[in-house]
Amino acid sequence: MVDYDPEQLLVQAKQSNRVALAKLISIVERGGGLARELTRLTWGQGEETYLVGITGAPGAGKSTLTDRLISVVRNRSLEVAVLAVDPTSPFSGGAILGDRIRMQDHATDKGVYIRSMATRGQLGGLALAVPEATRVLAAVKFPYVFIETVGVGQVEVEIVGAADTTAVVMTPGWGDSIQANKAGLMEVADLFIINKSDRDGTRETRRDIELMLEMSSFEDWIPPIIETVATGGSGIEETFEAIESHREYLERSGVGQKRREARILDELNHIVQVEINRKVDQLISQPSFSAKKVELINGDIDPYSLARELLKIEDD
Amino acid sequence: MVDYDPEQLLVQAKQSNRVALAKLISIVERGGGLARELTRLTWGQGEETYLVGITGAPGAGKSTLTDRLISVVRNRSLEVAVLAVDPTSPFSGGAILGDRIRMQDHATDKGVYIRSMATRGQLGGLALAVPEATRVLAAVKFPYVFIETVGVGQVEVEIVGAADTTAVVMTPGWGDSIQANKAGLMEVADLFIINKSDRDGTRETRRDIELMLEMSSFEDWIPPIIETVATGGSGIEETFEAIESHREYLERSGVGQKRREARILDELNHIVQVEINRKVDQLISQPSFSAKKVELINGDIDPYSLARELLKIEDD
Repeated sequence: MVDYDPEQLLVQAKQSNRVALAKLISIVERGGGLARELTRLTWGQGEETYLVGITGAPGAGKSTLTDRLISVVRNRSLEVAVLAVDPTSPFSGGAILGDRIRMQDHATDKGVYIRSMATRGQLGGLALAVPEATRVLAAVKFPYVFIETVGVGQVEVEIVGAADTTAVVMTPGWGDSIQANKAGLMEVADLFIINKSDRDGTRETRRDIELMLEMSSFEDWIPPIIETVATGGSGIEETFEAIESHREYLERSGVGQKRREARILDELNHIVQVEINRKVDQLISQPSFSAKKVELINGDIDPYSLARELLKIEDD
Repeated sequence: MVDYDPEQLLVQAKQSNRVALAKLISIVERGGGLARELTRLTWGQGEETYLVGITGAPGAGKSTLTDRLISVVRNRSLEVAVLAVDPTSPFSGGAILGDRIRMQDHATDKGVYIRSMATRGQLGGLALAVPEATRVLAAVKFPYVFIETVGVGQVEVEIVGAADTTAVVMTPGWGDSIQANKAGLMEVADLFIINKSDRDGTRETRRDIELMLEMSSFEDWIPPIIETVATGGSGIEETFEAIESHREYLERSGVGQKRREARILDELNHIVQVEINRKVDQLISQPSFSAKKVELINGDIDPYSLARELLKIEDD
């Protein structure tokens, strides 16, 4: 199984071997022991990588926008990776792969790595897999990683909200802003993009966003609202400049470091939960537990005492 | 705090002191250390108590039906407790208390104990509180405990599904059966009641239920469908007889014992989760964790190693 030695794959991936990189992301998707080993190997690496989260309702034009942002990064001779996450689909495929095809402009460009990602119901799921995948991409020294999600559910918000800069893409019309507000996007958005802004309703959507922003509280950074027409390329440079301004703000204010720390502790928290569940599964499958189970059912031991015995917790 | 010594309260409650009983259920609602002590005290007691779960959409007439069933039990000179659970309301009150007023026929009857119950967002919530409350009622030797829930969401289904016999109450018309099916009620129902069966649509509702039953698989017990008009009292004796038939089936087949064991292991599982969360909270608030946190953020220790150190798990 030389193919699946994470350490060796990581060395190869760092030498721009894209097949090795793809295998590493697959390890992350599958979870388990190899994924844990990979976390140990990549932890604390790639701090120079900047994470940009891009979210919004299906049909908002996120993929086209991402495609254009890739061009902006490439024009500056920097490499970029895109992680397209679909929490609703158990397998990579379907709508998100369709969207990927639009990024074919960059298909032959070695400086661009695009990967769809899904998890197959493993413990911890995307909450663990996405940070680990971004860390692999960071270890490989991509200066930018774009994390794109489909939909604006709670999982998606959590995922993109963990980026350094989170962009929320909307379209002219009434529904999007309400939906975004419900999903808790107002709290994670660092910039708003009204895409397809050549359509009717742009002014109304801007007003909706401004109203929601007025109801929220901010410290120093007030999320800008940028109008784009991604298909025609308008507003894209402005979007990238807004990302860079936000980056400067994060560095200057120290907020970026705080966010990074919160992200790390969130990940620890998820890992602790997953490890505990693994430990409990192990305990319960032990032969000694069968005897305890009989005692419990017979009323000879109560469930709190047994739980504490299983977990080796001291009484308080 | 003599008032809140669970051991003493339990002794008093067993001597038919209803104030003491009410205090015990309040302890369960609040959760925490006293509730855990109460579990230790009541565990393995009251095995002769029979639990009947009654669920169905709001407006199906569950309270009137329960009221009538109370009369049937009381006519046999047996005592009965009713636990009315409202997972949607953070406090006892509102709709469910209104419903309770209809049970005032039994308000002065010492052999009937009726209690609304809600939990205030404590760890484990209703999944822990309801089994514990029923166990308190069982320790006090009620031969029957009726557990009534409002609504047919997943939590409600879980709660009533843990009873010995689960009755699902529907009304004539199209919507209820679809709703019940969606909520997973078909898997927990031991008998179906079409209440308000003097109305149009009873035959259609019966056909819907039969169709859903045909699509399900059963071993020996096929849930009967009983037509009632609870307000007029028709079908109530038949309902109680169906509960008793199901009880005989559970005893004869051994399914009752299996269910009881599954219920106990479910409760252990919930308790293990809650205890783990408590343990992790304790660990993270320790002063020694602050130093570890800095190591983690600096990349000197990876989160899996730290999680395992926190949890004292051996590497595998």
